[in-house]
Amino acid sequence: MQVVELIRKKRDGETLSAGEIEWFIQQYVQGQIADYQASAWLMAVYWRGMTAQETTDLTLSMARSGEQLGVRESITPVVDKHSTGGVGDKVTLAVAPLVAACGVAVGKMSGRGLGHTGGTVDKLESIRGFRSSLSRDEFMDILLKHQIVLVGQSSELAPADGKLYALRDVTATIESIPLIAASIMSKKLAIGASHLLLDVKVGSGAFMKDLESARLLAQTMVDIGRLAGLHTVAAITSMEQPLGRAIGNALEMAEAIAILRGEGPQDVSDLCYHEAAELLVMTGTMPSLAEADMRVRKVVRSGAAQAKLAEVIAAQGGDPKQIERPELLPTAPVRVMLRTPRRGYIAGIDARQIGLASMQLGAGRFQKGDAIDHRTGFILQAKVGDYLQPGDPLVEIHARSEAEATSIQDALLACYRWSDVLVTARQLVYDTLRP
Amino acid sequence: MQVVELIRKKRDGETLSAGEIEWFIQQYVQGQIADYQASAWLMAVYWRGMTAQETTDLTLSMARSGEQLGVRESITPVVDKHSTGGVGDKVTLAVAPLVAACGVAVGKMSGRGLGHTGGTVDKLESIRGFRSSLSRDEFMDILLKHQIVLVGQSSELAPADGKLYALRDVTATIESIPLIAASIMSKKLAIGASHLLLDVKVGSGAFMKDLESARLLAQTMVDIGRLAGLHTVAAITSMEQPLGRAIGNALEMAEAIAILRGEGPQDVSDLCYHEAAELLVMTGTMPSLAEADMRVRKVVRSGAAQAKLAEVIAAQGGDPKQIERPELLPTAPVRVMLRTPRRGYIAGIDARQIGLASMQLGAGRFQKGDAIDHRTGFILQAKVGDYLQPGDPLVEIHARSEAEATSIQDALLACYRWSDVLVTARQLVYDTLRP
Repeated sequence: MQVVELIRKKRDGETLSAGEIEWFIQQYVQGQIADYQASAWLMAVYWRGMTAQETTDLTLSMARSGEQLGVRESITPVVDKHSTGGVGDKVTLAVAPLVAACGVAVGKMSGRGLGHTGGTVDKLESIRGFRSSLSRDEFMDILLKHQIVLVGQSSELAPADGKLYALRDVTATIESIPLIAASIMSKKLAIGASHLLLDVKVGSGAFMKDLESARLLAQTMVDIGRLAGLHTVAAITSMEQPLGRAIGNALEMAEAIAILRGEGPQDVSDLCYHEAAELLVMTGTMPSLAEADMRVRKVVRSGAAQAKLAEVIAAQGGDPKQIERPELLPTAPVRVMLRTPRRGYIAGIDARQIGLASMQLGAGRFQKGDAIDHRTGFILQAKVGDYLQPGDPLVEIHARSEAEATSIQDALLACYRWSDVLVTARQLVYDTLRP
Repeated sequence: MQVVELIRKKRDGETLSAGEIEWFIQQYVQGQIADYQASAWLMAVYWRGMTAQETTDLTLSMARSGEQLGVRESITPVVDKHSTGGVGDKVTLAVAPLVAACGVAVGKMSGRGLGHTGGTVDKLESIRGFRSSLSRDEFMDILLKHQIVLVGQSSELAPADGKLYALRDVTATIESIPLIAASIMSKKLAIGASHLLLDVKVGSGAFMKDLESARLLAQTMVDIGRLAGLHTVAAITSMEQPLGRAIGNALEMAEAIAILRGEGPQDVSDLCYHEAAELLVMTGTMPSLAEADMRVRKVVRSGAAQAKLAEVIAAQGGDPKQIERPELLPTAPVRVMLRTPRRGYIAGIDARQIGLASMQLGAGRFQKGDAIDHRTGFILQAKVGDYLQPGDPLVEIHARSEAEATSIQDALLACYRWSDVLVTARQLVYDTLRP
């Protein structure tokens, strides 16, 4: 097989076979195909796209490029959940223990935050002693014993994706639906859960800016799941304004605990209960979404959900007292209340800009590998549709210093759009795609 | 400036500024832009194309990436001539001395053959002692003294082109009209003649397979010439069957001499006289093509054209006796006559296949740097439209051995298409594009 011929085929809009794609990925990971050939091929894929079968073949080849956990061979059903990322998105932190408390195993590998979006692992690491990096044996032991395990992304998983992603990042080939879908799904297939719930975020704070692109990405991933034998459901949800009220690592951890206790903000609580219920129905654990929702709310009321989170935190070396009493989570030295400058309804809160502002406080990363401050962030005091008077509390700023808290205020105010007439927030779940 | 941003712009079909293109080429030549970024950019250019201004800016930046001879600053008019390459294409060998014999200076750098197409430098090197590699001073001295100089392509000229071409070759980005045009024209601009005649070949033996692509390439190069201040005319000519009768280096050298004496095959002789006349008109040396044609035929009849070739050969260390008496050129040890297998008109002679067959005899290169045998090749005994009987001479094979001559015969016969009714060859010059 000739790599130039494979580039040419894709350049000319032809379809590559599973064998050709497998050869390409294997050779690339082994260093037999140069980066300059891979990047030309990636640009041709960006241009010409890929069929559902090609995208699936690419995903499978990437999944096979490294370690494969095959968790469903040890326990089934076992669910996985993935969000394409947003601002204030602590849904995974709540959904995983909710589902596990209902008796369905959850084996979850999560990423770190980069740019304006946060990462589940960073939020978990605001807990004292918590270990996000486990050996394969530890991962399986904790999953089998507690029906839940929450770790960071292993670099052994789908190394082809890591190598291709780094190349795409410097060659303007990130924003390709088949490549994004293959990147996400290859890691999911390497883990090998039996069921996967995807949360595809759309809006200013999300990677997908419009509903059409989000729907295309969601459908592409559901198709990969179908063709690759992984039962996949994709919810398309709004990321116009931040999710819930907390932005920042320890602050979001605390909000996730509130959600597990039934005391969280309604928007994000409803989304968490809905996603947990969807997983219970997907796995055949509950016969309908209505019954599943009742089951989920029951483990919230009973305290079983919160206890399940404390259990897995303890199993992974963390301090369960910080889950039982979230006021023990680390707190920023300075709290400053930003107050409302005018009268009116909040018409919009730009999620991306809020995320960027939180980075300024140290809550997020400008570049991979940057250290973060788990304590800083914001607590939104009002959301889209709320009516405020001048002087009303708008945002509680959690900062390392008065100076940082002051310096961020103009940027924060610029995130808000106001209206003199009532504006209601858009629905949170736009659609759910099933196989 | 960010290279990823320049890739993205081209990927999204935006237009790059002269400054952006200059920066890209400079950084690439200096190794500050990685091959994997350049190749993604090249694929984006392949996809999105370039405006005439972008193509010209790219060409100028590539021309500025190395040595610039600026020959027109020492002598003017001074003409350059370029063929996109074909089989049996000895036109440059004849046109350069024809024009110089008419008093117009010709400074010509030529390439070597690769694959099925031959190269002017290889043909010149069939002459004993001829030096195709000259210093810049030698080049200018000979040009000023003899109004003609014929050398190989300097690697100091437009090094950006050399680097980009090598990358395009392994990333399936060769066949892009703006990139092909910039590659050719950058070297022409670096030489700095005042007038340029392009011969864009079209047909089975040429790089451009169809008239539409050839016309687009020709127009692109004429546009670059106009925008870059180089008076450029492009002839679009046929390469369906080999040009003339000789294929092979010394054999083509001998045919070029025959053309200069007025004894060459009519098709290629007419083309050479036409191109020489075009150059005389372009430079204002002659007022019309008809009068220019008469002038050209006069230097043929007087022997001045052949004498001019002998003069430049001698100036570059070659043996002028081989020009005065072409029977002194090196000859192959074996000559075998392939005879006509059937009765009928020749309907087609596949130029590309004939070129590939000549490579088998050692006359061409499979890879850059391969040694070649200057003696071998073919003399076609008949051309398209000729009526032949079984046993009539078809091709005289000039080979290193009987075995090689025999082994090539089936491949040669497969190059011919036959017809029972008269087939006339297509016109040789399809069109001429002027600025």
